[in-house]
Amino acid sequence: MSNPRIVYLNGDFLPFDEARVPIMDRGFLFADGIYEVSAILDGRLVDNEAHLARLDRSLGEIDIANPHTLGEWVALQTELVARNGVAEGLVYMQVTRGVFERDFAYPPAGTRPTVMMFTQEKTVAANPLAAKGARVITVPDLRWKRRDIKSVALLAQVLAKQQAAAAGVAEAWMVEDDAVTEGSSSTAFIVTAGGTLVTRPLSTALLPGITRQAVLRLAAEAGLALEERLFSVAEALAAQEAFYTSASAFVMPVVELDGKTIGTGAPGPHTRRLRELYLELARAGT
Amino acid sequence: MSNPRIVYLNGDFLPFDEARVPIMDRGFLFADGIYEVSAILDGRLVDNEAHLARLDRSLGEIDIANPHTLGEWVALQTELVARNGVAEGLVYMQVTRGVFERDFAYPPAGTRPTVMMFTQEKTVAANPLAAKGARVITVPDLRWKRRDIKSVALLAQVLAKQQAAAAGVAEAWMVEDDAVTEGSSSTAFIVTAGGTLVTRPLSTALLPGITRQAVLRLAAEAGLALEERLFSVAEALAAQEAFYTSASAFVMPVVELDGKTIGTGAPGPHTRRLRELYLELARAGT
Repeated sequence: MSNPRIVYLNGDFLPFDEARVPIMDRGFLFADGIYEVSAILDGRLVDNEAHLARLDRSLGEIDIANPHTLGEWVALQTELVARNGVAEGLVYMQVTRGVFERDFAYPPAGTRPTVMMFTQEKTVAANPLAAKGARVITVPDLRWKRRDIKSVALLAQVLAKQQAAAAGVAEAWMVEDDAVTEGSSSTAFIVTAGGTLVTRPLSTALLPGITRQAVLRLAAEAGLALEERLFSVAEALAAQEAFYTSASAFVMPVVELDGKTIGTGAPGPHTRRLRELYLELARAGT
Repeated sequence: MSNPRIVYLNGDFLPFDEARVPIMDRGFLFADGIYEVSAILDGRLVDNEAHLARLDRSLGEIDIANPHTLGEWVALQTELVARNGVAEGLVYMQVTRGVFERDFAYPPAGTRPTVMMFTQEKTVAANPLAAKGARVITVPDLRWKRRDIKSVALLAQVLAKQQAAAAGVAEAWMVEDDAVTEGSSSTAFIVTAGGTLVTRPLSTALLPGITRQAVLRLAAEAGLALEERLFSVAEALAAQEAFYTSASAFVMPVVELDGKTIGTGAPGPHTRRLRELYLELARAGT
């Protein structure tokens, strides 16, 4: 009873195998594009307006005019999710600067951005990894300096995630000047022995995580003090709990870092509580 | 009498408009690919074996198996240049990690890399800019840390080149800690008042320029001492001459930096000599 997979591309809903872009697409040649991912839970998009606001901001930072209004985006996403019959998973959106003869500088004004969306079915709520806790390794942060822009120039993150995969763990935390900067596709948090939630403050040096923001709003409800600052690998190892957040991982407990146990080696109560509160919010469709 | 434009893609020589890649190509989603550019002069590829060796090295650095032997690459390039009837211009080659359902970590072993090539007609030898000299601006270097890998994660370079285009100049020199690191698509050089050719030494912090290597070999013949070190913006402004090199610009005189004249404001004798020597080499087909 599964639907044939449908992809959205530049105004059309196409069978997956027909969704192709010209070789001169600037996304393919230059990583000259932006992406976003929203989770789907119970058939509904999670924190979607915040993701679309961040998409708009990222596009603006690299001078691509947002091709759609918020309402248009939501309508396209909703139709795509319905056509694919996805109840749980994610919707991926990508906008590139469009198709033009290869040259580094921007193509002429009026070049139409490429808009592409697809869905993936995935168990995001009852994810077994969340019950067990994730193992994580640290890797050097090789990324560029505008980490606040969610661009498709993701090679550094690919290499980081591959190191994690090769080590048989779920995520890589990137380290620079001995501080944990971010996960390869997530935001990094610790809960100190004293019960303070620690994550670094927003700047051009990290992605403004949508799930990060929601978790910060939930910290007080979870009985946690909050400190926005960098933390070191040593601090993470000495922490009571650690976790990472992302659109599709939600709040993911970290129980091991570089082969060393964090806390009791099982998901801690603060992390479990934050995941629970976040899932409630997500289900309530805020 | 112009030929219809032909592109090479995964084993086929296709009409330009039919050359498309699936949306799940990792080049499009993750900038997970490598590229190279060789100039074409008098219908022949310039310094091509060095470009193909660098392609092989870049692919190795991100664990993509080179899909072709040197001989296969040359045969494909030669056929593409012939089919497009290009006497002067460039051939562009790109290899990505291939097509697979989106996930940061590498797809399974055996996933076939995407191989794409196209040509562009361009006046590279009698380029009028070389007679006049290029104007250049400086911009902050926003790139990642593995600048020795010629990947398609080029967004920082796109933004730099666009700043140059918006300023009405030919190139942007990227600056970090007050030193000129590289051009957005070229290697930066100065000739000091004392007649020493200065360019930074190779490391993971810059692309090992093919034209750079050739120019370094020609320095002695041009009567120049050589110093491989970083230089500052102030040093560049005080230099006798400045220039940049790339596969398609060859040796390009720089006569103005950030609106200030360098040297006499016209291409200097050392730079003109190096360009001449390089063109002789290129024509000799070394």
